[in-house]
Amino acid sequence: MSQKRQLRLGAIIQGASGNMSAWRHPDAVADASINIRFCQQLAQKAELGKFDFLFVADGLFITEKSIPHFLNRFEPITLLSALSLVTQKIGLVATLSTSYSEPFTVARQFASLDHLSGGRGGWNVVTSPLEGSAKNFSRDKHPEHDERYRIASEYVSVVKGLWDSWEEDAFVRNKASGQFFDAEKLHTLNHHGKYFSVQGPLNVGRSPQGRPIVFQAGASEQGKAFAAEAADAIYTRQETPELAREFYQDVKRQLLANGRDAEDIRVFQGISVIIGDSLSDAERQYQQTAELVTLPSALDYLGRYFEHYDFSQHDPDAPFPEIGDLGQNSFRSTTDEIKHNAKARGLTLRQAALEAATPRPTFLGTASDVADGLEYWFTSGATDGFIVRGGTPTAFDDFVDQVIPLLQDRGLYRREYEGQTLRENLGLREPENQFAARQRQPEKVTA
Amino acid sequence: MSQKRQLRLGAIIQGASGNMSAWRHPDAVADASINIRFCQQLAQKAELGKFDFLFVADGLFITEKSIPHFLNRFEPITLLSALSLVTQKIGLVATLSTSYSEPFTVARQFASLDHLSGGRGGWNVVTSPLEGSAKNFSRDKHPEHDERYRIASEYVSVVKGLWDSWEEDAFVRNKASGQFFDAEKLHTLNHHGKYFSVQGPLNVGRSPQGRPIVFQAGASEQGKAFAAEAADAIYTRQETPELAREFYQDVKRQLLANGRDAEDIRVFQGISVIIGDSLSDAERQYQQTAELVTLPSALDYLGRYFEHYDFSQHDPDAPFPEIGDLGQNSFRSTTDEIKHNAKARGLTLRQAALEAATPRPTFLGTASDVADGLEYWFTSGATDGFIVRGGTPTAFDDFVDQVIPLLQDRGLYRREYEGQTLRENLGLREPENQFAARQRQPEKVTA
Repeated sequence: MSQKRQLRLGAIIQGASGNMSAWRHPDAVADASINIRFCQQLAQKAELGKFDFLFVADGLFITEKSIPHFLNRFEPITLLSALSLVTQKIGLVATLSTSYSEPFTVARQFASLDHLSGGRGGWNVVTSPLEGSAKNFSRDKHPEHDERYRIASEYVSVVKGLWDSWEEDAFVRNKASGQFFDAEKLHTLNHHGKYFSVQGPLNVGRSPQGRPIVFQAGASEQGKAFAAEAADAIYTRQETPELAREFYQDVKRQLLANGRDAEDIRVFQGISVIIGDSLSDAERQYQQTAELVTLPSALDYLGRYFEHYDFSQHDPDAPFPEIGDLGQNSFRSTTDEIKHNAKARGLTLRQAALEAATPRPTFLGTASDVADGLEYWFTSGATDGFIVRGGTPTAFDDFVDQVIPLLQDRGLYRREYEGQTLRENLGLREPENQFAARQRQPEKVTA
Repeated sequence: MSQKRQLRLGAIIQGASGNMSAWRHPDAVADASINIRFCQQLAQKAELGKFDFLFVADGLFITEKSIPHFLNRFEPITLLSALSLVTQKIGLVATLSTSYSEPFTVARQFASLDHLSGGRGGWNVVTSPLEGSAKNFSRDKHPEHDERYRIASEYVSVVKGLWDSWEEDAFVRNKASGQFFDAEKLHTLNHHGKYFSVQGPLNVGRSPQGRPIVFQAGASEQGKAFAAEAADAIYTRQETPELAREFYQDVKRQLLANGRDAEDIRVFQGISVIIGDSLSDAERQYQQTAELVTLPSALDYLGRYFEHYDFSQHDPDAPFPEIGDLGQNSFRSTTDEIKHNAKARGLTLRQAALEAATPRPTFLGTASDVADGLEYWFTSGATDGFIVRGGTPTAFDDFVDQVIPLLQDRGLYRREYEGQTLRENLGLREPENQFAARQRQPEKVTA
């Protein structure tokens, strides 16, 4: 029996859901970002909705002007480890930066998460956009954008090498003979590269899904190239289905150019949603949430993308100010977009700030409208799936209760998890152990 | 009503319990070190026994000669985060090294664990004994022993400074006014020291127990001095109650010399136990477990303390070989003890290796014998409590089922948890926020 290509979904855990001021919403859990009961309920709701995975973003530097739910929040890998024993099937994808951590530790923590969860771990690789991060990690300066990606590329290859330290059946555990493991199936990495020297082996056995799923979330050209080289999944955001289709095709092209298969990466569009009884009800919900954002907090929000630039020094009703290249080494794609947008549409600073701080949801309308939108993007080749964020504190629940059943009725989305691991549910191949593969295929000897 | 001083207990999670070959025992879960169901059952059993905390050791370097349960095991902070949602009252103490990690990350992960668990997190500070660790962390060499403690001292002061980033009531979250936090209660560390420069603030609010409990586990003079300066609890091991009493008094003396209160530290003796229906039944259990260890694996075990020295090159039945200063920069106190013991008692290499690999339990006998032993150590001022390890795969369960009720009947041990947090259960004071304290007590101005 043939089955339609299946849509895949991730769920974001980040504060109360909605915009930066959504914690003020009457329905919001104001301390959501540090409230484990809230996170557990969201996780269980997402699992009820058969979501492929939970996705937790991260950041390594705050100031008093940072968005509220960034000030006081769980560290991603501890949060997802905690959720591993109160969920059964949903994947657990944590963001962790390659710019301020050690490959051995990160390989270990994700491998451990994978064992804790029975093969549901994922690592969203980021390089840390915020310049200030260096100050929290005893560094003179934040590495520049392209350098960060060179570091990331070597870093991820080291981590994957460590994840291959043990073959799947290395641990024999024969009580009678006393043989605990098969030494032939233990591989020591001995990596000596430009940025890292890591011997190995890792002190965690091969993960239940071969290795944790690697996500990549940067939208720059370097980010895309890195994804095509090393990632299993991409988290991206495009404004229109046309741009998304272009992005999608470009990724698949680069994948093939790298000798990988087109099916080796799943592309996810990050979206936010608001579901109403009618379009106007949804619009009302959006406005209600948008009105919670004040101008000063919107200016702070905007400033965060531009190296914490103080926009309050400018007349809010004058055109968006000229501020040069600030932010080029951090949120490059976002700052370019904000400036381009303000200029093209002649926005005032107030308009640009409030627009940035209260983004309209990608999909807003009735459950049927939203399902139509998702179906169109998906079937027209713009994406393999979506990572969903509620546009109000209640929108994610609405999505699970109202949109998921429609997607299921249309045959686009699972009614039950297909597999036990995140990899199985995403329909990705189990990777070969690189050392075992090398042993099976010795280098050709030329005459 | 007066109550007797209360004994406190921790439980070790480490492999199948017993010696290095206990995984071979008929009753053992052979993959215990990477089996979350096993860990969860042990945690819940310990909580049934009203243990103060679970304690997870760690290491950052393995070779094929490492002990089986070190080869493939959970990373401690992910494991304890996972257990945080399937336990209610028991503390969660994870070992993490200050020699190969970043204070900002470690402060975050432990603060996060503390929030996840409602104030039950603890950090066992170690400096990593194994020389080889450097090779997994892109370092030229392992820092020498005293240097490691200087690093640790600065490191822990940075972490504590980060944990004080937010005062307890900093987060106002006033939905009506839009005030999320009180800026007066946010403190930025701005640390610039010899080893670390860390600005802060931490992106996690003050922990439910003020700050996570800090354990220290090194037995050297530097370790003890560090504990007296910075720790809330000590994990140590002495051979006899006399030595333990000496250690205990020395710690308390150093504590007072540092201007701290004698009640500011809890000392725990690491012990192992075997409980039998009779003394000879307990002895039989010990022998059964000891016989699982082969000579080659015992030699490997011994070698680990001496920089992975290959003892198999020596005649096992000749006197313990002369091997110089190997291991002085790693397990200094252990290697000194092994060499001293072998020389003083004229042991052969075989005897020394098997003795080291199959240590006799500190307490072996009937439940009543073991309870007597604990009571004597405790009431004679040798310790505040014990960290218990089963001497066979079933001994920990026996301890909870048989010894705990006796300690309770004798009025030495709780029948119910006194508090909600680890700090409350350990009877330790909540620490003041250092920044708030400084503001309340401005420096005296001399005329």
